[in-house]
Parts: sequence; C-alpha cells; structure tokens
Amino acid sequence: MPSPSFEERFDPEIAAAMTRMNNDADAGLAHYLGIVFDAMTPGRLDATMTVPKSVITPFGTMHGGAMAGYVDHVMGCVLYPLMGKGQWAATTEFKLNYLSAVKGGELKSTATVLSLTKRTAVVRVDVKDGDRLACVAQGTLLITDRG
Amino acid sequence: MPSPSFEERFDPEIAAAMTRMNNDADAGLAHYLGIVFDAMTPGRLDATMTVPKSVITPFGTMHGGAMAGYVDHVMGCVLYPLMGKGQWAATTEFKLNYLSAVKGGELKSTATVLSLTKRTAVVRVDVKDGDRLACVAQGTLLITDRG
Amino acid sequence: MPSPSFEERFDPEIAAAMTRMNNDADAGLAHYLGIVFDAMTPGRLDATMTVPKSVITPFGTMHGGAMAGYVDHVMGCVLYPLMGKGQWAATTEFKLNYLSAVKGGELKSTATVLSLTKRTAVVRVDVKDGDRLACVAQGTLLITDRG
Amino acid sequence: MPSPSFEERFDPEIAAAMTRMNNDADAGLAHYLGIVFDAMTPGRLDATMTVPKSVITPFGTMHGGAMAGYVDHVMGCVLYPLMGKGQWAATTEFKLNYLSAVKGGELKSTATVLSLTKRTAVVRVDVKDGDRLACVAQGTLLITDRG
Repeated sequence: MPSPSFEERFDPEIAAAMTRMNNDADAGLAHYLGIVFDAMTPGRLDATMTVPKSVITPFGTMHGGAMAGYVDHVMGCVLYPLMGKGQWAATTEFKLNYLSAVKGGELKSTATVLSLTKRTAVVRVDVKDGDRLACVAQGTLLITDRG
Repeated sequence: MPSPSFEERFDPEIAAAMTRMNNDADAGLAHYLGIVFDAMTPGRLDATMTVPKSVITPFGTMHGGAMAGYVDHVMGCVLYPLMGKGQWAATTEFKLNYLSAVKGGELKSTATVLSLTKRTAVVRVDVKDGDRLACVAQGTLLITDRG
Repeated sequence: MPSPSFEERFDPEIAAAMTRMNNDADAGLAHYLGIVFDAMTPGRLDATMTVPKSVITPFGTMHGGAMAGYVDHVMGCVLYPLMGKGQWAATTEFKLNYLSAVKGGELKSTATVLSLTKRTAVVRVDVKDGDRLACVAQGTLLITDRG
Repeated sequence: MPSPSFEERFDPEIAAAMTRMNNDADAGLAHYLGIVFDAMTPGRLDATMTVPKSVITPFGTMHGGAMAGYVDHVMGCVLYPLMGKGQWAATTEFKLNYLSAVKGGELKSTATVLSLTKRTAVVRVDVKDGDRLACVAQGTLLITDRG
C-alpha cells in the first residue's frame, strides 16, 4: 500500500492557521526578519522576506545569519500541514550555500519537501533575490509522536 | 617555506577592534541575538549568546534560526585577525546539527579555524548549553583580496 | 556586462572527451562503481551507476559510501566543459542526504550547476532509484587558474 | 535518571566482532578502499585507510569519492557497539570538507560520537594525512528498533 500523497495528507486548515500565525505575529524571530508566508500548498511553502535595515551590516550587505534564520524558519514550517494528529516535526540539521550577496529588498523563498517517511523528512530551500539564486539549502526534520 | 602560523598571523589590534565593535553595537543581528565576544585568540573565537526572550517560540524553546544566526556570526568573525592587509573573508557555506533543544540562558560557543589557505578557510563551531552540546557546525569561508 | 551563459561557455569537445575518458576507463573509482556518463550539456551532467555487487553490504543494501563516491564523481565532472583554458575546478565540500535504501540496479543522477563565478561554483546532485529519489546533495567547487 | 554513558553502553564483543568483520573482509567497499579498524572504544573508532593505487586519478591525487566513502564507512560503524539488542543505526546524512589533496599513503581517521539519543546520533569524523587534516565531516545517524 503506497503511503498517502502530499495532497491526501495536506490539511488546509493547519496551513491557514500557520500562515495567519506567522503573518500576524508582532514579535519573534520571523517577525524581526520580516518573513511573510505567501502560500502553503502540499509539500511546499512560498515566503517573502523583506530585508529589514537592522540586518544590513556596516559593509552594506545582509548578514548571512539573517539568511540562515530565514532558511531555518521556512524549513521548519513547511511540514506542519502534512503531519498527522499529535505529530510534530523539528529541524535536526541543515546545510546552506550563500550564492550571492544581498543588499536589501525582497527575498522570495521556496521550501520543498523532497522526502517524507514516518520518522524523517528532507526539505530543500531555494532563496531568490530578484531573478538570481541567493541561497540554497537542504536539511532534515525529525518527526515525533507526542506522548 | 611553511605558511605563517596562526600565532604569527594574528593581529591583536584587529581582534580588539572587532570585539569592541561587536560588544558595543546597539543595533544589528548580533545585538538582537545577544552575542558578546569573550575572547579572540589565534584561530579561535569564544563567545556567549544570552538568549533573548524574543527568539523563544510559543513551544517554549529557542528558534533554531537564532542558533543558525549565532553560528553564522561567529564563523564569519573568527578569521579577521588572521587576514592580511586588504584581505577579507566571507562565509560561503555551512552545515549545522542541532543536538538539543534550548530553553534560554547563556550559550557558550567556540569557533575554531581548522584550515587556512590563501583562498579558503574551514571553521568549526561548537555551541554549549551548560555542559552539553547544543549545536555543532562546520563551514567554509572564501578569502578575497580587495581590489 | 553579463557573464557568459552556460551555453556560451560550454565546450562540447571537452564534454565529449570527458565522457569518453569516463566511459572507456578500465580502472579507477568511477569504473569500480559502474558509473557511465549519459549526457553532458551546458551546466548539467546525466549519469547512470549500475550498482556492482561488490558494494552491496551483508544487510542486502548498497553501502552509503558508494553513493557518496558517485555524488562526488559527478559533482566534480559537471563543471569541466564550462572552464576556460587553463582553469580547473575541484570539489571542496559537499553534503548529502540518503533518502531511501538501494538494493541494486541502476541509479540515474543529474548534476546541475546552480551558480558559477570566477572563483566558485555550487552544484546540486539528485540521484534516483527508479522513480524515487535515493539521494540529494549540494556542494561547492573552487575554480583555479593553473600557474 | 541520566542516560547510560558511552562506557556503560559499550559492548566490547560487538566492537571486536565488527573489527574482525571489517579487517578480515576480502570483498566490499571498505576492502576495496583499504580501510582497517585500529581501535573501537566507547563512542570512538580509529581507522586507517591505506590508499589503493586504483583511486589515484590521472591528476596524481586521490579521488574525493574515495575519501567520501571512507568517511561514510567509519561514521556508519562507530555506533554499533553502543546499540541495544535489536537496535541498529544508519547514516541518514553527512557533510564533509576536503582540506588538502592526498597523494597516497596512510590516512588516519577518528570518528567520534558527539550526541546520542534514543532516535539519533551525531558523529564527527576527522581524517589526517600525516600531521595535517585532510578531511572533516559531520553527520547524522538514525537509530531503529528492528521489528
């Protein structure tokens, strides 16, 4: 028996709730970084980060740590609408490459679930600055049944 | 002829200036995350992050993106006192593993230069929460001669 | 002035020579692993590994190290037809995720150049076992001008 | 109640059996790569790879894929003597940096368990070529209870 597809597993209410929770937050790291969720679809999260001035370094470019925080955030959220009742998912590791310096503006990201088993998921994240890639990442989430 | 050792390359004035610049900042990502440099020695940077409440998620644990930002920050700074005049170094990629959830308090980190050539460096970062490892990372910096 | 596109940089003679050299080898790691290049196109290498029995472990699945060797091999080769005269490229780091156990048969891989500057390139590799992903990887190559 | 220490968990009989199985093999990837286990101690595996001529490329240096295979192998083995009855561990991802080109000879490696929970472990691998680091890696293993 094949495992359920992302479409079958996807809970649009959880996606809507997470999007609202993220976009309406007035505190927290994602709020500080200016991250807004544009669309949560089965196995995918599209988001935009409007680079805040506070993460521009004296060299005039965005602090890499802001990108790393952005990647971690979308990677950790994309899976929720696919979880079963009582399950949750936590990022356990990731790797990223910075492909070009960012001066500001809007960074569009796509987090894509590449693989999902009962225990783990692998997610890829691409971040674009205009039409060029600014960062690519891939990481692993562990899935847990709450006690 | 062997390349100069970290001790020979190390410029304590740059280390002192970077430490001051980091610790006295009243804006920027490192300030937001509560990162203070404790010691810059040849090939090594010891720092402390006092976890701000703003990066604690509704689940009661620190946002992984805050750890990622912390790792990126110390990885990107450890090399400066080893650079020659007119050189600079930028993180081009890293990978991290989260080893345990963090609830707050102080996170001590050590960034260690494992390898340094004319063009690249490899840096390892360990972050401890009390006496246990909370995060380990390794990454690559590219070294550039300013034009 | 925009940098030349992959199509403009691509040297089909180098691609043909590398393919021949790889596919005709009767020794070396790629020969041992059963790796054949199917197509080298601008910024992309498609290859097939016919899993040799010698890398099946006593547990009946392919040794992960064989996959890692496969990834390293195609990642290191995809860039050559894009190099200028006297340039060469060497993998300096990569990260991979194993997505499913492999029992044998043919593994199709695609190495794709995501980014290429004068000094570095970032390459992504996907490996498929039939219609499912078996491994995903991303890594960095350093580009050098020979003395 | 603290979890058992590596010393308490360590089963010397399994360590001896794995060492024998590895060192006496006359086939398989580890045999092809010339990997011998020198010592398995709680949370640590020391090994030596005597670089075979077959993995030296036409450029006169060792194929990176051979190093990747070496890293995968020791990372995947270090955990076994710490597993409970009926448990096993499989590498799910790792990242490595190549620090220096290898021309041949003996490569000494140390795999160290940094973290071990019921479900995952994080392992670090250092590989030395004489007295300099040739490769550093870190990766994640998933721990499974056999059905």
